Amino acid sequence: MSRHAQVVGLGLVGSSIAGGLRARGWYVTGSDLDGARAARAAALRVIDAVGRDTRAEIAFVATPASGVVPVVRELLAGSERPDLIVTDVAGVKGPIVAELAHPRFVAGHPMAGSEQEGPDGADPELFVGATWVLTPTDATDPVAFTALQSVIASLGADVVALAPERHDELVAVISHVPHLASATLMSLAGESPVDHAALMRLAAGGFRDMTRIAAGSPAIWPDICRDNAGAIVPVLDRLIDQLTEVRRIVADGDREALSSLLERARSARRNLPPRGARPVAVAELRVLVPDRPGVLAEVTTLAGELGVNIYDLEIAHSAEGPRGVLVLVVDAAVAETVVTPLRARGFRVSWTTAS
Amino acid sequence: MSRHAQVVGLGLVGSSIAGGLRARGWYVTGSDLDGARAARAAALRVIDAVGRDTRAEIAFVATPASGVVPVVRELLAGSERPDLIVTDVAGVKGPIVAELAHPRFVAGHPMAGSEQEGPDGADPELFVGATWVLTPTDATDPVAFTALQSVIASLGADVVALAPERHDELVAVISHVPHLASATLMSLAGESPVDHAALMRLAAGGFRDMTRIAAGSPAIWPDICRDNAGAIVPVLDRLIDQLTEVRRIVADGDREALSSLLERARSARRNLPPRGARPVAVAELRVLVPDRPGVLAEVTTLAGELGVNIYDLEIAHSAEGPRGVLVLVVDAAVAETVVTPLRARGFRVSWTTAS
Repeated sequence: MSRHAQVVGLGLVGSSIAGGLRARGWYVTGSDLDGARAARAAALRVIDAVGRDTRAEIAFVATPASGVVPVVRELLAGSERPDLIVTDVAGVKGPIVAELAHPRFVAGHPMAGSEQEGPDGADPELFVGATWVLTPTDATDPVAFTALQSVIASLGADVVALAPERHDELVAVISHVPHLASATLMSLAGESPVDHAALMRLAAGGFRDMTRIAAGSPAIWPDICRDNAGAIVPVLDRLIDQLTEVRRIVADGDREALSSLLERARSARRNLPPRGARPVAVAELRVLVPDRPGVLAEVTTLAGELGVNIYDLEIAHSAEGPRGVLVLVVDAAVAETVVTPLRARGFRVSWTTAS
Repeated sequence: MSRHAQVVGLGLVGSSIAGGLRARGWYVTGSDLDGARAARAAALRVIDAVGRDTRAEIAFVATPASGVVPVVRELLAGSERPDLIVTDVAGVKGPIVAELAHPRFVAGHPMAGSEQEGPDGADPELFVGATWVLTPTDATDPVAFTALQSVIASLGADVVALAPERHDELVAVISHVPHLASATLMSLAGESPVDHAALMRLAAGGFRDMTRIAAGSPAIWPDICRDNAGAIVPVLDRLIDQLTEVRRIVADGDREALSSLLERARSARRNLPPRGARPVAVAELRVLVPDRPGVLAEVTTLAGELGVNIYDLEIAHSAEGPRGVLVLVVDAAVAETVVTPLRARGFRVSWTTAS
């Protein structure tokens, strides 16, 4: 018997999740406000059936951000299963999490995409090696969280837990402002009508790389910019300030400052962790946790803040009364990075490594 | 008997030119101020021999920009061949061309590269499908230009002729400012020490694409920024102005302006000519040219301004006295784009298409 999943919204990400689950043996029902798109997904065998499956054990909401809250509520209310887990993929988490404090809704954001669109661009392996952020809160049911983590890990992604606000600050730097800058550079280059053809002929790999994301669908960006303006505007301010300083450096011929900027950037770029790098050895951390709300979010987002992925997660009951044991599998090389602050917060932690 | 070429400067571009020529049967002698690098190039069989070959018929100067002028002079003076052709690959052409008004020095700029370095990063096919700008002037010997065009075409690149100043304006938009913006974005992301690890884990494909060029060697950039400050500074000003407008759009929640910016950028990005797209059919343009200096530069840079590549180029003597016939092979689809303005300037042009 196949496990049942629901995917609502069959854009690139929803279709890729659906295709990825199907490739791993799930029975996937999909829906989209655009009926033709849902039919196309079925024709391409990205989903098994069009519609709603009230027996699904997990639902991925991959609609535009503004659709997430009502769809999640509707799914939770309409399910035959009291253990249905619902997650979403919207690019900004704060506003959604603030509205949806439900134990079995765990907000998420897969950090993967492409300039392709819809079911035709679906790639069942899109998430292999990608980071997938989950934003647990005090309301999150640990059992729902661990089950979701395991489904996401089966798609090949690495789960990082972050507080919703922290996620939103980080993506402003790493995704939203770079996207806006890419579009601005592209529109700047597209502006010179006279030289346009000659200019475009000169566009080599570097320019093509920098502007690739500008080719993607703009549909999601107005919502992202509205929902995350509070984090985006200060980062844009910093970018404008730094470019103003770069302008001064170039105008003054300040070679030293220029070399120093470029060296800093180069070193930061070269230190980007390679996508999908798996640890040589993993460590199993056993954290004795009191049975109170928010402990799961506290422990996992602490790891996330430290840049530590959670490769596996389990909750075991303790023999010592009303407590549980949270078992986290992390990269052995960074295990101490997490253990030390956990102990500093009063948690009892033991750990073992295994290759 | 192999044809002999000289490559001075064995960084990524010089080594790739050397390797590309060797792969096409040339005997290549290479040199570099860094003796270890030259030895490495020889060990990797990127070059046949280390040193100078006074019998070389063509020399590529791929040193840093500040070395180009003295090296070109030395090569022209030290050659046994009165027909030696010399070219360079520096990223800014105005200052070099202004200093080197020699009929057999034709300045150039291959629009290809990678974040690799030196002979170890050499790729004999690096230029396949790339645009390679040449900047002929009134001083340029048409025979040297056509010979150089043919060697560059044999490396797989498409030649575009542009006036040096025009090249410099265009690369400020398409290469220099994007590079500075990429480095600025990367250094912005690299700046937050607390969140650094978590931030870097979130770096998905879009961010990696946008910052890839920041990983390359910064060594060439101080010279580029010095030599092309006049073109770079106004483009940085426009970028800063536009980002300031984007900031306003995000802060005000101006959805319409945001969508319009993103749609403009998307459409410009999607209209980038695909790298290395070859024409379905070519046209042979025969231009009757008077025997006076500068005609070759006038005709070829006119095509370049219009974004038209020159796939082949030949000079034939005319039966009608002191004139020549310039034969240009261009994409048949854009032949009229060139023919009309050439006729408007008084040239006699005939053309035929061939698939």
